[in-house]
Amino acid sequence: MEATRALARYVVESRYDDIPRGIRHEAARALLNWTGCAIGASRHEAVERALAALSEFSGPPQAGVLGRGERLDILHAALINGISSHVLDFDDTHALAIHPSAPVLPALLAFAEWRKTSGADLVHAFVLGVEAECRIGLSVFPEHYNVGWHITGTAGVFGAAAAAGKLLGLNEQQMTWALGIAATQSAGLREMFGSMCKSLHPGRAAQNGLSAALLASRNFTSSEQAIEAPRGFAHVLSTRFDPTVITRELGEHFELSSNMYKPYACGLVVHAAIDGCIQLRNEHNLKPESIARIDLKVCPIVLELTAKTTPQSGLEGKFSVYHAAAVAMIHGAAGEAQFSDACVRDPRVVALRERVTATADDTLAKSAVRVSIHLNDGRTLARHVEHALGTLQRPMSDADIEAKFRGLTDGILDGRQTDELIRLCWSVDTLPDAGEIVRRAQVSSLTLAPSPGGRGKTGSLLPPGEGPGMREGNH
Amino acid sequence: MEATRALARYVVESRYDDIPRGIRHEAARALLNWTGCAIGASRHEAVERALAALSEFSGPPQAGVLGRGERLDILHAALINGISSHVLDFDDTHALAIHPSAPVLPALLAFAEWRKTSGADLVHAFVLGVEAECRIGLSVFPEHYNVGWHITGTAGVFGAAAAAGKLLGLNEQQMTWALGIAATQSAGLREMFGSMCKSLHPGRAAQNGLSAALLASRNFTSSEQAIEAPRGFAHVLSTRFDPTVITRELGEHFELSSNMYKPYACGLVVHAAIDGCIQLRNEHNLKPESIARIDLKVCPIVLELTAKTTPQSGLEGKFSVYHAAAVAMIHGAAGEAQFSDACVRDPRVVALRERVTATADDTLAKSAVRVSIHLNDGRTLARHVEHALGTLQRPMSDADIEAKFRGLTDGILDGRQTDELIRLCWSVDTLPDAGEIVRRAQVSSLTLAPSPGGRGKTGSLLPPGEGPGMREGNH
Repeated sequence: MEATRALARYVVESRYDDIPRGIRHEAARALLNWTGCAIGASRHEAVERALAALSEFSGPPQAGVLGRGERLDILHAALINGISSHVLDFDDTHALAIHPSAPVLPALLAFAEWRKTSGADLVHAFVLGVEAECRIGLSVFPEHYNVGWHITGTAGVFGAAAAAGKLLGLNEQQMTWALGIAATQSAGLREMFGSMCKSLHPGRAAQNGLSAALLASRNFTSSEQAIEAPRGFAHVLSTRFDPTVITRELGEHFELSSNMYKPYACGLVVHAAIDGCIQLRNEHNLKPESIARIDLKVCPIVLELTAKTTPQSGLEGKFSVYHAAAVAMIHGAAGEAQFSDACVRDPRVVALRERVTATADDTLAKSAVRVSIHLNDGRTLARHVEHALGTLQRPMSDADIEAKFRGLTDGILDGRQTDELIRLCWSVDTLPDAGEIVRRAQVSSLTLAPSPGGRGKTGSLLPPGEGPGMREGNH
Repeated sequence: MEATRALARYVVESRYDDIPRGIRHEAARALLNWTGCAIGASRHEAVERALAALSEFSGPPQAGVLGRGERLDILHAALINGISSHVLDFDDTHALAIHPSAPVLPALLAFAEWRKTSGADLVHAFVLGVEAECRIGLSVFPEHYNVGWHITGTAGVFGAAAAAGKLLGLNEQQMTWALGIAATQSAGLREMFGSMCKSLHPGRAAQNGLSAALLASRNFTSSEQAIEAPRGFAHVLSTRFDPTVITRELGEHFELSSNMYKPYACGLVVHAAIDGCIQLRNEHNLKPESIARIDLKVCPIVLELTAKTTPQSGLEGKFSVYHAAAVAMIHGAAGEAQFSDACVRDPRVVALRERVTATADDTLAKSAVRVSIHLNDGRTLARHVEHALGTLQRPMSDADIEAKFRGLTDGILDGRQTDELIRLCWSVDTLPDAGEIVRRAQVSSLTLAPSPGGRGKTGSLLPPGEGPGMREGNH
């Protein structure tokens, strides 16, 4: 059977009981991790600016923005939560390059507030959405990614469409259309890395995928071979396509089993370097003043993605392996604080960053690094990290993810709210109403009661709009 | 200077006085033609289904749907008017393959209802939007189109962003971002031709381009070399890129001077065949019963795009050069009526359609055809059409466009409304408030007064929602 229809049929026919327990638990881990990221970034400038630009066009207050008080229509809520959950580059990553949760969960949680959805149904739809986006993404990987597509956006839209379509109860024909409507909205360029548009990609994927499912539910038609046709997604957006990746072992192998969570607030390719530096720092109680030079040997992709030698902003710092190594050595950490504008400009950091070198070594995998630290006293310390913390070989534990959640939500949620959210996420598959997660993730002082039959005064919550005019520096 | 910034600077610095009178008049022709198409298709199933799927998520009633009563937020209005204006395949076409008005005018007219905009400002922004989308499209043409991109969607989003950005008064930096945010949403597959998604493309381009400009106005950042960077739009979505096409003679040569309007309600590539058949039919008073065979020699692209031998629906009929020739011969016309489901299934049409052959002849241009009609009495009538009616060589007159408008709006608007709209379009550059055009294009019996401070009951206007379930026939 053709890939588009085979995938549609699988998603439509799958039953919750078919999902193994381990995969359901992985869904809860993904949910907790993702929710923390969205709340943690809920005051990020990208979120503020997107809300300032778009909220006056929002429909009824159907769904909440995590970590804030605004309630928007479900399409705008999916967009904004998609942006916030990815903007820190702290969300989950599938084995190769896709961030699976950021395009899918915003669509599902918005949906769950609009039409009451059980936690089990949400978990089920999420697992299927991840299956769709990862299999479609992998079927054109790596050529599709290498040419310049941001696969989290381009594949993510399929995930959101399949997941939302499952909750809408689409039949096979409609699910095929939903995938087609998703295919023809597939977009997102890697050229945007380092700008706010990177996080726009999963936001739009969530919004457009949800919209695709809604359109299909009203029998809005598309091609029925949208993925595999000679002018379909795969052939237009890639030079390689293996349709069996989409159809092989459907319902037996689950892509969510290859999901990873990040201990550090930046792109995965930098994690090994951070890990190696932190290990040596802690073992030898190193101070930056004692370090003459840090030499990194890294997988070539690391230099392709993160070779900014003189980052000017926190965001650019995430694309600098030099900065990452420097803060790991100075702070012993690489959280959001280490990728702030202030930290990127800190003279101590700048001074050490200038003493970091990185060279490509194609014998090293993406998750590996060889760190050599040359000390002023003539000694050299070396560390070979084969698998960075957070990889499938060295996964974060449930407790690690919970601790990460607490770190991200600290200062935004109060302690009771945090505890309650953690409890809701771990027990998501037992919840009668998954929308409860979003309601508990909103900040009550900003929460608006929707006026009956009317719109909440969403706009009034926003900071005064910034007028046209340039901002300095950070992009 | 780099193409993205050069284009942004041009759009920002252009003054209305710089636009030649002839180009302003061409803008009025495009506006009248486009408005007629949108009104004429305002009850099309694609429009009904999109409204049924999405209107409950619409924001405040800021802008009208042409030919109907609904008022939606400006982003949804841009989407729906973009769909309706393209769904008949009757809108304008730039020399090569782009439909320039459908992605740009919906964004501008929605904007004009939201923030009072003079007709001159609207014309100015439209001319600049067309300039942006056509130049960017041409810079990657034809490879970009040939690989499978629907250039009206992929390039159109730039046109909407540039045009809306002009009305928003973006500065050069913001306009550069607006083009970048557009670039990273560029999407639309030719695989969708023959389905409702084809018209979704300009709708989304209008919506996403408008949204890009709004985001940029709040300093939402993107890459600043979004078009020309190694991983930018041009290199990722095409194997060919000539940046000088974007920057050459900016402000001197205007792409709108290459705009064409269609006399027939289908893809341009079929027009020559229709034209030739109608000419021979009328000159020789031919009846289908007297015809043994119609042989067409056509440009190869005609068979690539419209080789459906047994169309099952009106929509598929538009992608059948055989059907087009048959109805031209039987009806002497090729309007919407000739591309209805009923006409496609009419036994007289089916019988003649089966006697039409088409063969590729690469000496023929897209706008040319050689028609040979073999009569049952043994005679053969031949006609070589070099330039079909509606081409730049044989353009539709102002009166032709006005007559087309009357045909499209017949039965939807009353006579006085039609006259008034025609007057408004021809005099658009003198209007103090261009939003007047949309208000006059709405059907008053369905018009809702927006409730003060609240939302119009948009939803209640819609036909009862169709539940999930398949429709027969036209996929």
